[in-house]
Amino acid sequence: MLEQDKSADSGQQGKLLAAIDLGSNSFHIVVARVADGELKPIDVMSEKVQLGAGLDEHSHLSEEAQQRGLECLARFAQRVADLPRSAIRIVGTNALREAKNRDVFILRAQQILGKPIEVIAGREEARLVYLGVAHTLSDDNDRRLVVDIGGGSTEFIIGSRFEPQKLESLHMGCVSYTQRFFADGKIASDALNRARTAAARELLSIRRDYRRLSWQSTIGSSGTAKAIRQACLSMGFGDQITHKGLTALKERLIEFGHADKIEIEGIKPARRAVLPSGVAIMLAIFESLGIEAMDYSEGALREGLLYDMAGRLRHEDVRERTIKALKKRYHVDAGQSQRIEATALYLLAQARQAWGLEDTEYHDMLSWAARTHEIGLTIAHTQFHKHSAYLLQHSDLPGFTNTEQQLLAFLARGHRRKFPKDEFKLLPEDRQSAYRKLCILLRLAVVLHRSRSGARLPGIHLKVDEKSLNLSFPAGWLEHHPLTRADLENEAEYLRAISFELQIH
Amino acid sequence: MLEQDKSADSGQQGKLLAAIDLGSNSFHIVVARVADGELKPIDVMSEKVQLGAGLDEHSHLSEEAQQRGLECLARFAQRVADLPRSAIRIVGTNALREAKNRDVFILRAQQILGKPIEVIAGREEARLVYLGVAHTLSDDNDRRLVVDIGGGSTEFIIGSRFEPQKLESLHMGCVSYTQRFFADGKIASDALNRARTAAARELLSIRRDYRRLSWQSTIGSSGTAKAIRQACLSMGFGDQITHKGLTALKERLIEFGHADKIEIEGIKPARRAVLPSGVAIMLAIFESLGIEAMDYSEGALREGLLYDMAGRLRHEDVRERTIKALKKRYHVDAGQSQRIEATALYLLAQARQAWGLEDTEYHDMLSWAARTHEIGLTIAHTQFHKHSAYLLQHSDLPGFTNTEQQLLAFLARGHRRKFPKDEFKLLPEDRQSAYRKLCILLRLAVVLHRSRSGARLPGIHLKVDEKSLNLSFPAGWLEHHPLTRADLENEAEYLRAISFELQIH
Repeated sequence: MLEQDKSADSGQQGKLLAAIDLGSNSFHIVVARVADGELKPIDVMSEKVQLGAGLDEHSHLSEEAQQRGLECLARFAQRVADLPRSAIRIVGTNALREAKNRDVFILRAQQILGKPIEVIAGREEARLVYLGVAHTLSDDNDRRLVVDIGGGSTEFIIGSRFEPQKLESLHMGCVSYTQRFFADGKIASDALNRARTAAARELLSIRRDYRRLSWQSTIGSSGTAKAIRQACLSMGFGDQITHKGLTALKERLIEFGHADKIEIEGIKPARRAVLPSGVAIMLAIFESLGIEAMDYSEGALREGLLYDMAGRLRHEDVRERTIKALKKRYHVDAGQSQRIEATALYLLAQARQAWGLEDTEYHDMLSWAARTHEIGLTIAHTQFHKHSAYLLQHSDLPGFTNTEQQLLAFLARGHRRKFPKDEFKLLPEDRQSAYRKLCILLRLAVVLHRSRSGARLPGIHLKVDEKSLNLSFPAGWLEHHPLTRADLENEAEYLRAISFELQIH
Repeated sequence: MLEQDKSADSGQQGKLLAAIDLGSNSFHIVVARVADGELKPIDVMSEKVQLGAGLDEHSHLSEEAQQRGLECLARFAQRVADLPRSAIRIVGTNALREAKNRDVFILRAQQILGKPIEVIAGREEARLVYLGVAHTLSDDNDRRLVVDIGGGSTEFIIGSRFEPQKLESLHMGCVSYTQRFFADGKIASDALNRARTAAARELLSIRRDYRRLSWQSTIGSSGTAKAIRQACLSMGFGDQITHKGLTALKERLIEFGHADKIEIEGIKPARRAVLPSGVAIMLAIFESLGIEAMDYSEGALREGLLYDMAGRLRHEDVRERTIKALKKRYHVDAGQSQRIEATALYLLAQARQAWGLEDTEYHDMLSWAARTHEIGLTIAHTQFHKHSAYLLQHSDLPGFTNTEQQLLAFLARGHRRKFPKDEFKLLPEDRQSAYRKLCILLRLAVVLHRSRSGARLPGIHLKVDEKSLNLSFPAGWLEHHPLTRADLENEAEYLRAISFELQIH
């Protein structure tokens, strides 16, 4: 009976997806049902955790702030307990980007949630914000500026339809600016102006490029824009944020004199403390970018995450496009990367069951690594595996989380010469065993194609056990390819150093 | 009388230049007189120091090998004692690239020579070898392959006239291969074949690309090619190296059975030990690249160094071209880099006397750093100063030594945010004080152009003392540019952290 209900349920209503956003100001969770490419939120929660306020001057996240975050996640955990790993994404933004002790927090949080947490770069955050906002807007061809003032960073995106054209993330947010300029809660003209000047200085780095591109409409997203728009509305300035409304709001805040005394209809008590800094940042944005009016959109990072996941379900993985762009930018030898990819996946197909690498993640990551492991040749031939790893780790790669970039960088780093033990130790513990094996498969593919020729390889049989690989070639082939044999024997020595046994027949 | 002679001497005969090459097998010095763009060697010396043989398995250079090198340099020192710094270049190649304790040796060597020693990358070595060889050849349009088997590395260059089109340096040389395959001096067919296979494996990485480019003539340079050609000549195979001659020489070496017993007309005793490995490497090169015959040229690294210096005297500095190519490859904002360069040099002009930065080196390096400090933006906006530094440090930059790349990378690394104390400590001690000051000048230029606008700056007066800078603007200008003032005040704080006082009026 129960079984029947369940299957009827999923058949009728489609797959569930969940996104959790560990923001610097608030944590959010949204659970949605996806059907026919449409997303329907069925559960939404937010809590003002103020993780960013727990960062001290050494970028150390305090125990209290961690506790606040973990207690919130304990409440979220129940909602996602039954979802498979591929149906949920949990991302951290600026506070976790900055925190030097983030690994401790992430480990504890993962234990509570039972799912991996990924920290994303500022520009990836901007891309996802835009995706979330774009789905709330009419599908016209207008160019839009989307501004998302968060707790620790502010994202600026110019795009049209679902395509971002310019993405930036600046180090300023309502939580960090509250700590810098309004730590005692007092609201004075002087502090507001200093916060505004600081924000204007940050904006200098993007101002010219953004104004040159221009846009037809401006949209704000997330809590600060929502609160300012609500305040402007309450004060009779209509439902857009305007410079006039902002200036009046600033004067009103100065009249209140202290965050605790803010009384504006629709502004919740928890928002009071970070409203003055939010207004100062918004004023600087209006003035630096010449904005006259801003609409508000309910779409934000968490919605963007959901649409990104839904896109992957439909095989519109933005990461695929990123890898193609990367290959082009760094002039990768297309024939060679194709050969190595094909061989690496051919070997994976023979090893994946015995090595527990059946998740599509492993197939995708090995494929991407095979196509990009030579990008470092653009910098220099010497030690190019290190340069490839540097580029994969540090480039803006839309769609990839920081951890995914680290894993790709590791595969490139380890594709030749000694196995990189130091870099290996830095990988998340729960990925180490799988990625060591993926790295071995990539190495073998590289060795087999070392001549860089288009000559086809014979059918090669790979049999693996936990710590051994058995590679067999058709009779006579190795005798006719003594250099490959010598290279494989050499590789066997490298693998012996990490306690893997490679046998060749 | 003596005075008169001297001036007559230089007027009549032109400027003296000297190049010292600290090779893995031999150290060489050549002193030449340059007049009307022609170089006339007036003094040449070589000593078989075998520095590369002093590297143990941990890439540690033994005390004995260091002593051999230092004693040789003591003999060279006298020849260059009277030359100004700009008239001499001393470069180290593979043995010093590899040695983990090279800094110790370099420091001792510099004390003996009284001049700085620079370690160059493999491809820079290849470029200089080609330059040296090209000057010995007829000035036709043929495409040539130049092969230089050294003690620790072998360079391969395809080029025509004075332009290299392809440069590679592989990790194989007659000293390192002697240690690997002929350590006991015995010459057997088996060892020769193993050395040849190892070399063939190294060649796999360049084979296809080189064969695809093709060339009309093949030239060998340096001691190994010279000795092999001499042996072939003695054995009656004409004055080219051919595959037939090489094979006969190999058989002859096997007959001798031991390096000590090699008796071939024209082969000096000091060459005997490294001849078998040299022949094995040369055979692999002939076979992998499909070479039929090779001519020998007297030009080599040291001649290339001299011509490179002479080119700089005529303002044909290849480094200038390298910087332009780098700007293009990484899409540098041309307007912004021009503005920053102009302002940085304008500030240098006002500070150079008081700060002892009058050498043209400082002008050039500041100019190059100003033009390239933003190349890291191609990788990502976040921390782009670090990416710029990575690219400047690790890219193949024709004409630049490793130290120069390190200094440029340091300037880019330090152009914004905190002054990079850790990277600063890694600079050669004798450059630290000057490059800290250059970095400060670059930082000021960057701050002054932070708006990235084309608006002209006013006349700015800079007055410096050892630990202070006094920057004065026309009356009223700072009041009208409050963001610049705020940025300069911010910069004053950064400089205070390295004990420099910045005053602004």
